[in-house]
Amino acid sequence: MTKIKTLETILYRFPLPEPVEAAAAGVMSEFELVMVRLRNTDGVEGSGYTALMVNQGAAVAKIIENVCADIVKVADPRKIEWIWSQMWKTHHYAGRGAPFSFAIAAVDTALWDLRGNTLEEPLWRLLGGYNPTVRAYAGNIDLNFPVDKLLEGASKSLEAGFRSIKMRLGKPTLREDIARVAAMREHLGPDVELMTDANEAWRPDQALRALRALRDFDLVWVEEPIQPYNFSGYAHLRANGGIPLSAGENLHTIAEFAALISAGGVDFPEPDLTTCGGITPWIKIAHLADAHGLPITSHGAHDIHVHLLAAVPNNAYLEVHGFGLDPYIEHSIEIREGFATAPDRPGHGMIFDWEGLEAFRVN
Amino acid sequence: MTKIKTLETILYRFPLPEPVEAAAAGVMSEFELVMVRLRNTDGVEGSGYTALMVNQGAAVAKIIENVCADIVKVADPRKIEWIWSQMWKTHHYAGRGAPFSFAIAAVDTALWDLRGNTLEEPLWRLLGGYNPTVRAYAGNIDLNFPVDKLLEGASKSLEAGFRSIKMRLGKPTLREDIARVAAMREHLGPDVELMTDANEAWRPDQALRALRALRDFDLVWVEEPIQPYNFSGYAHLRANGGIPLSAGENLHTIAEFAALISAGGVDFPEPDLTTCGGITPWIKIAHLADAHGLPITSHGAHDIHVHLLAAVPNNAYLEVHGFGLDPYIEHSIEIREGFATAPDRPGHGMIFDWEGLEAFRVN
Repeated sequence: MTKIKTLETILYRFPLPEPVEAAAAGVMSEFELVMVRLRNTDGVEGSGYTALMVNQGAAVAKIIENVCADIVKVADPRKIEWIWSQMWKTHHYAGRGAPFSFAIAAVDTALWDLRGNTLEEPLWRLLGGYNPTVRAYAGNIDLNFPVDKLLEGASKSLEAGFRSIKMRLGKPTLREDIARVAAMREHLGPDVELMTDANEAWRPDQALRALRALRDFDLVWVEEPIQPYNFSGYAHLRANGGIPLSAGENLHTIAEFAALISAGGVDFPEPDLTTCGGITPWIKIAHLADAHGLPITSHGAHDIHVHLLAAVPNNAYLEVHGFGLDPYIEHSIEIREGFATAPDRPGHGMIFDWEGLEAFRVN
Repeated sequence: MTKIKTLETILYRFPLPEPVEAAAAGVMSEFELVMVRLRNTDGVEGSGYTALMVNQGAAVAKIIENVCADIVKVADPRKIEWIWSQMWKTHHYAGRGAPFSFAIAAVDTALWDLRGNTLEEPLWRLLGGYNPTVRAYAGNIDLNFPVDKLLEGASKSLEAGFRSIKMRLGKPTLREDIARVAAMREHLGPDVELMTDANEAWRPDQALRALRALRDFDLVWVEEPIQPYNFSGYAHLRANGGIPLSAGENLHTIAEFAALISAGGVDFPEPDLTTCGGITPWIKIAHLADAHGLPITSHGAHDIHVHLLAAVPNNAYLEVHGFGLDPYIEHSIEIREGFATAPDRPGHGMIFDWEGLEAFRVN
């Protein structure tokens, strides 16, 4: 039987082209990426990663090295569900949450990539195969940008082929948020879709007032108005706020998505494979959403998520935002008339410039 | 202003005197402990720890070193709520779960110990001051023990002063579990309290059948019959099983306790300060339980939990089980007629044999 011969865990730290701000995270000027590289006894490779705030990657790398690696190396790498369960059970006492979910995400993704590379099939077909073309939006992070720069960023996104754009909320006053959204809506005209993201900026009372004040701007959604675990708060805001809600990047288990969806708290579940435990749980969350009549959207890691969305029938939007990784991937994602297309290359199809990446290696 | 001058993070690995088994964790022959040692600019010290399965401590140490230490060193160490919030917010994206909660637990405990040592007050008075004497039970871990050894362990616990004893459930067949509980109840007689702990051994259907089959043994509780995040499952079993339920060692946030309690899923919330983020959230969970008319009990770390239980009016039971740390603490906890007493020494009152502990140091 083919087995995993080598598992390498690499911690990178990347500077951002310019500092960006979101409410919960604050101003970010660099980010970390934990990469898992697998090679099996036939010489086939697979890679997967998770992304984190600065200084938070080392713990994730330790979990992979100390716990996951031993499980992966003795297993049949085709039995991804079995390996995922073993990782989950072994780390159960100090797991079932973050950053554990980030660690198994990188491993699980590398296993799926290896599987695709072995079978010479792209992930989007391997995981279901619905339609390779999915609607995309530009996930701009811009809370610290003045209005002119905000609109300039939107123009660049439109030039790049987007027809749907996201902007951040959560300025110190609601008046300022409203002014920025009004300026953006006027700039875009009525036909470009506009999403907004509050990144947990508000208390429930503030969120309700904000949603009501934002109702005339035809928003596709308001994302994360409040803290992620307040499921009854989400249900209240969805019932009374008058604007669809999205959330999910800060939920780390399938059970958390089940709780939010069952509470009636979300219109667009937004799992991030790099924060929810990998491709294996992401697909289950997509199907869970579908069972409740809901679409699915993604957060970050667009080169991989384009496959996952293309795999399932209830896909809504792919979030696209570059974190400076693009120069080190052979094929960057292309947006045409608002849509992205999952590649037909095997696995996730990302071909990394491993030598170029060495400059950012921490460990 | 007095500040933190040094923060040391130490990873220990301890062999257990003999291998023990619990359903979710399997057989354990060693465990890890991540210790935080603080010293302030006046030379006062504080210490705190969290405990983990083998190979899982290194990631926790990394979180403390890479993220928590910088926050603690610049802060006013008296502002524990502020420091705790900063740690939570800084690590929010890859936090709000485990093993992050284990890391901040060790730091938070060390800060509370430092506070007690500075004010020369024991934690139990500093945190509320209800009654230093709390009912205790022996938290024996014994799923792998044959019946004669199981009963022998119970006898030793009775000789040590306990009047309440816990045993493990989750053998391959329910018939075997029943036979072991029956033997234990006969051995103890009717007046010794008997708790049981299934450590998530069962599916909901199995758990219901088990609870119904165990109803005639006068159990104080069945602990963790099913997976910890299945709050509606807990509510179902509590409503229909006929035996009180306890749970909490695998919940890692106040919000998870709020969800379990609000669902009506638990009789004995059982937070563990080393897994739920420290003393600061533990006390809030105790008060949350009280607000719902529920008692509070503890899991592990008995030398610290005796203070927390002694601080609050709704304390029910202190779980006591030695993990081999006792020889390296100057004053081991004493049990008299079923009760333990929180010491009047300042802080948590544990005086470690730091030199003796060096033999177990990993990092």
